[in-house]
Amino acid sequence: METNTVKIIFMPSGRRGEVKRGTSLLDAARQMGVEIESICSGRLTCGKCKVQIENGRFEKHGITSSEAHVSEATGAELRLLAEMGAQDVRLSCTALACGDVLAFVPEEARGQKQIIRKTASERVIAIVPTVRQFYIEVEAGELGEHRGDWGRIQDALAAEWNLHGLRIDLQALQKLQPALKKSDRAVTLTLLENEVIDVRPGYEEGVYGLAVDIGSTTIAAHLCDLRTGAVLATVAEMNPQVKFGEDLMSRVSYAMTHSDGLSKMHSALIETLNQLAVSAAREAGIRARVIHEAVFVGNTTMVHILLNLDPSELGGAPFALANRDAMDVKARDLGLRLHPGANVHVLPAEAGHVGADNVAGLIAEEPYHLNGVTLMVDIGTNAEIVLTAPGTMYSASSPTGPAFEGAQITFGMRAAPGAIERVRIDPETFESRFRVIGDEAWSDGWGPEPVRRAAGICGSGIVEAVAELYLAGILRPDGRFNPDLEHPRIRREGRDVAYILADGSQTTTREPILVTQSDVRNIQLAKGALYAGAKLLMNRAGVAAVDRILLAGAFGSYIDTKYAMILGLIPDCNLEQVYAVGNAAGDGARIALLNREKRLEAQRIAREVRYIETAVDPQFQAEFVAALHIPHAQDAFPHLEGLLPETKPHRSRSRRRKTLLKK
Amino acid sequence: METNTVKIIFMPSGRRGEVKRGTSLLDAARQMGVEIESICSGRLTCGKCKVQIENGRFEKHGITSSEAHVSEATGAELRLLAEMGAQDVRLSCTALACGDVLAFVPEEARGQKQIIRKTASERVIAIVPTVRQFYIEVEAGELGEHRGDWGRIQDALAAEWNLHGLRIDLQALQKLQPALKKSDRAVTLTLLENEVIDVRPGYEEGVYGLAVDIGSTTIAAHLCDLRTGAVLATVAEMNPQVKFGEDLMSRVSYAMTHSDGLSKMHSALIETLNQLAVSAAREAGIRARVIHEAVFVGNTTMVHILLNLDPSELGGAPFALANRDAMDVKARDLGLRLHPGANVHVLPAEAGHVGADNVAGLIAEEPYHLNGVTLMVDIGTNAEIVLTAPGTMYSASSPTGPAFEGAQITFGMRAAPGAIERVRIDPETFESRFRVIGDEAWSDGWGPEPVRRAAGICGSGIVEAVAELYLAGILRPDGRFNPDLEHPRIRREGRDVAYILADGSQTTTREPILVTQSDVRNIQLAKGALYAGAKLLMNRAGVAAVDRILLAGAFGSYIDTKYAMILGLIPDCNLEQVYAVGNAAGDGARIALLNREKRLEAQRIAREVRYIETAVDPQFQAEFVAALHIPHAQDAFPHLEGLLPETKPHRSRSRRRKTLLKK
Repeated sequence: METNTVKIIFMPSGRRGEVKRGTSLLDAARQMGVEIESICSGRLTCGKCKVQIENGRFEKHGITSSEAHVSEATGAELRLLAEMGAQDVRLSCTALACGDVLAFVPEEARGQKQIIRKTASERVIAIVPTVRQFYIEVEAGELGEHRGDWGRIQDALAAEWNLHGLRIDLQALQKLQPALKKSDRAVTLTLLENEVIDVRPGYEEGVYGLAVDIGSTTIAAHLCDLRTGAVLATVAEMNPQVKFGEDLMSRVSYAMTHSDGLSKMHSALIETLNQLAVSAAREAGIRARVIHEAVFVGNTTMVHILLNLDPSELGGAPFALANRDAMDVKARDLGLRLHPGANVHVLPAEAGHVGADNVAGLIAEEPYHLNGVTLMVDIGTNAEIVLTAPGTMYSASSPTGPAFEGAQITFGMRAAPGAIERVRIDPETFESRFRVIGDEAWSDGWGPEPVRRAAGICGSGIVEAVAELYLAGILRPDGRFNPDLEHPRIRREGRDVAYILADGSQTTTREPILVTQSDVRNIQLAKGALYAGAKLLMNRAGVAAVDRILLAGAFGSYIDTKYAMILGLIPDCNLEQVYAVGNAAGDGARIALLNREKRLEAQRIAREVRYIETAVDPQFQAEFVAALHIPHAQDAFPHLEGLLPETKPHRSRSRRRKTLLKK
Repeated sequence: METNTVKIIFMPSGRRGEVKRGTSLLDAARQMGVEIESICSGRLTCGKCKVQIENGRFEKHGITSSEAHVSEATGAELRLLAEMGAQDVRLSCTALACGDVLAFVPEEARGQKQIIRKTASERVIAIVPTVRQFYIEVEAGELGEHRGDWGRIQDALAAEWNLHGLRIDLQALQKLQPALKKSDRAVTLTLLENEVIDVRPGYEEGVYGLAVDIGSTTIAAHLCDLRTGAVLATVAEMNPQVKFGEDLMSRVSYAMTHSDGLSKMHSALIETLNQLAVSAAREAGIRARVIHEAVFVGNTTMVHILLNLDPSELGGAPFALANRDAMDVKARDLGLRLHPGANVHVLPAEAGHVGADNVAGLIAEEPYHLNGVTLMVDIGTNAEIVLTAPGTMYSASSPTGPAFEGAQITFGMRAAPGAIERVRIDPETFESRFRVIGDEAWSDGWGPEPVRRAAGICGSGIVEAVAELYLAGILRPDGRFNPDLEHPRIRREGRDVAYILADGSQTTTREPILVTQSDVRNIQLAKGALYAGAKLLMNRAGVAAVDRILLAGAFGSYIDTKYAMILGLIPDCNLEQVYAVGNAAGDGARIALLNREKRLEAQRIAREVRYIETAVDPQFQAEFVAALHIPHAQDAFPHLEGLLPETKPHRSRSRRRKTLLKK
């Protein structure tokens, strides 16, 4: 005897339940809390709600499932499936359950998409964007019924999608009636949170967002599909503010000393952002006018200038932000030519000099969710340092200066083709070998016409050079060139001493590339500041050692962590627990774009982290002075045990050297 | 023995209580729920919180009050009072209670201002604007404290004014730090609901709003002080859309037939509104850029065009509105050059052809709060009719056509100087006397060179003329000229008949001004539609008679209600209960500007009123045909009893006439 209910099981979640015979599989899924994607809500327009009907007897579940247990596909369903080239699937909105069914929901049809992020740890990030689309068919108004078309749409959205308390942006309202008229009252609505920002005639799919990291030098933007999380295009441009000042402080000072300074820098930035949006959109085959949201991160000065906020207060103590919290503004109010209703979300800052970029890095890496003590370091002109330990979280900004970026180094340059990025110095012969960006070969393997000659030294190159000079005994632990050494590689001119890293035959200018005493000093100052900042936070948190270190940013990716520890840039740590996490700020911007809950997390974290002002901390000065040595206190680096030269490093150094390189 | 508490009584409210000795009178008032105005919260800046200390023994209250019972005025208080020229008052924020005090709070210092509205009934409207100002002094940021200046301001507003959950408009945030810097961290904040829209350095008082009634022909704007409710300026301009079409339907059709039609009409309207704002501001001695809010009312077509919404759907059934509900949009998004953060509030509509102007009239008059049955009529090209009875409220729009505005009348003109507005016809001699707008003298008292000759007939003039022609027996109850009458004043040319109202010597053109048979027919059609609409609503509400009639709009003000009833424009009613309520729509706009709760009332009323579509109601047609006679059914007008001529009105009419005019 036929009963009135049938059993349905959805895989892979394994959720099961009984529904009335004749229920659509989509409705059945909703009743059981299985999320199947659908934009058109059963109108055979979107084709999103695919399921596979499994044939067979499933003992474990006590049912027999068969394609014959669902209603036959209608002509309309078959046509839509054929259009999409979909085989062996049914649309769950149209397939009615006539008997027990075990259905598999393919990845693409699952309601909540997710992306996997994997750097220091692996995490799954659900796609929960602020922007969503809904297709509805609206009843026509009748004489004597006066809700108005927006009222009718609100009622339809409440009935079909359980959406309430909606608003509509004026520009969307302006499109509403023409769209209804054009498409026989079927429209696709785009909602940003609870505000309708677009109305398009008929079924029109596509929600897009832009995640932008405004660096002092480079602006990078990822264009994402907000439905799937896919990155459709990645574009970058020089920050046009460079012409108003190379570093942040000179830009702040430009704003302070020119009455139109802010306005010029703001306009230049907005213009570049508009160009980036157009390039990214073109690469993805869409128009910039359908980018519905943009998330911005950047340091506090960049965020001030983005929002046309005078950055003058950031130029001096107490470094007061205009606003610390996250902000949402209409893109049109900033002059951004995205969708006319597009939202701009700017992540919050932590303190006057620790901005949205750092917060973005935090929500990307979530060190506060890791066990033990984690140190996260983002090295730029300032090093931003965050230390998390169970129940506590500190941050600081250390004035490393730009040496790690290759600036303030005699032959320094940015990490670009031709820059020396790897350095080895033979501890016996003091001869050097190196590698430049853009060529896999070490310099001692170059032919008479090398692929690419050396043009300068980038950040990772200078770190390795100084470390190798130290390991070879050419530098003493205090950073001074060993006065006892005489060698053709070591050039002395009066009080100036330098090491010839590349000779004229190896360089683009035909002049040698040197590592000078002053370069070494600058690296010492930079690494001293970085280490002292980390140490300050460890002291505050009351921890003696860190369990892992996350190195964010470009420098963190290029640098060889061994050399970082030999130089004492970072505190002692098992080298296997030192991770380069890449552009965490950019990743965090993308994550905030795709997941609205992560924005709340960012806001919470930004307020929870306790920022320590290094500039006025007496401990910092002491730590800084102590950290100038290479490595300044060997007993503080047990993980380097056996890898360091003796006090007189130029003796019996070869054994140490070999031991180190075995690692 | 001195006790630790003192008694305070505030007049005129009579509230009393005990407070700790040394409490400021302002704090005492707050503790007792007495609202005293204060913007600066005790910083001796605003000078708003004045009180008079009464000297004497107040037996009834059991206290002796004396100026000596409050602390002596400080130098700063004396200076501020002197600056304001205030005598015999103290500032309650600074005057501390040292003994029992009876203080009088003068009208100007009371926390909640109000305006009195008096037309059909007297009502007090509290001033509760959406825009408010707060003066605060913000602590400076300190190194190591990272709330940001907006965070510090939020904390100050929460602590001093108990304001929470605030937002800040980007353009206000942009002004924040410069303002703090300029004024030693003392700023005046302007809030629109819970959003900060302005930050000004120091103490700067002044919140302003514009209430605008966009009529099809004329746009009128009132500039109001939002703190006191005072109207500072009233300005009006022709609606620039007139050049795209005289009446609403021709403008809708202009939008339908020209691709840039809407955009042209919208831009012209916005430009005129900007000019009006500037004129009003100039008259009030302020700048348009400090107008913080504007409330707009108008018919549905005008509101659509204001919001740049295509009005095409209003051109045909089912007359679907884009949006029925109230809307708030940023003035800048409409191109209005008010304050950069200014809000625009548009009142809701009731139905496709009953717009925000009608809703505004309703909240101004509140017929739904009156006892009995009230009929409210606003006569324009369409007559909008609302009937309220306890627990029920109906509205309709009756297609009167523009006859009552002087259009479709052979010698019709708008109510402007030279228009005949009053008419008397001697029932014995059939001679006429009349008065024109701009001259107090009746035409039979004119000298050989009259102050002003007649240029045409306006709405009230044609209504009186037709009624007098009927009372004189020249017209029959069916509206036809009595075929039996021969008189030099009655001109017959073939089938055309007309009454010579003014002869060539009395007119500007030197040609006579006539009332033609066709004019009479048009007035009959118009009054038939109006009456039928009213009757339809009465039938729906199940009421046989109305207790009062409110005539809104210009025509309602000009018209002599007796004649309106003689002609049968309005249902029978005690003439003492027929009120001209003036520009209720404009008043409603002003009320909504000054009182945010009235906006909620408007939204509620707009949804509650049951709109009856006259065009498709079979009852309406029947009532309409029946209502074409003058007065079409004498037994339906008991209040005209004894005032109407007999069936053969040209006989013994003088007695009736005299009886009527005694009233």
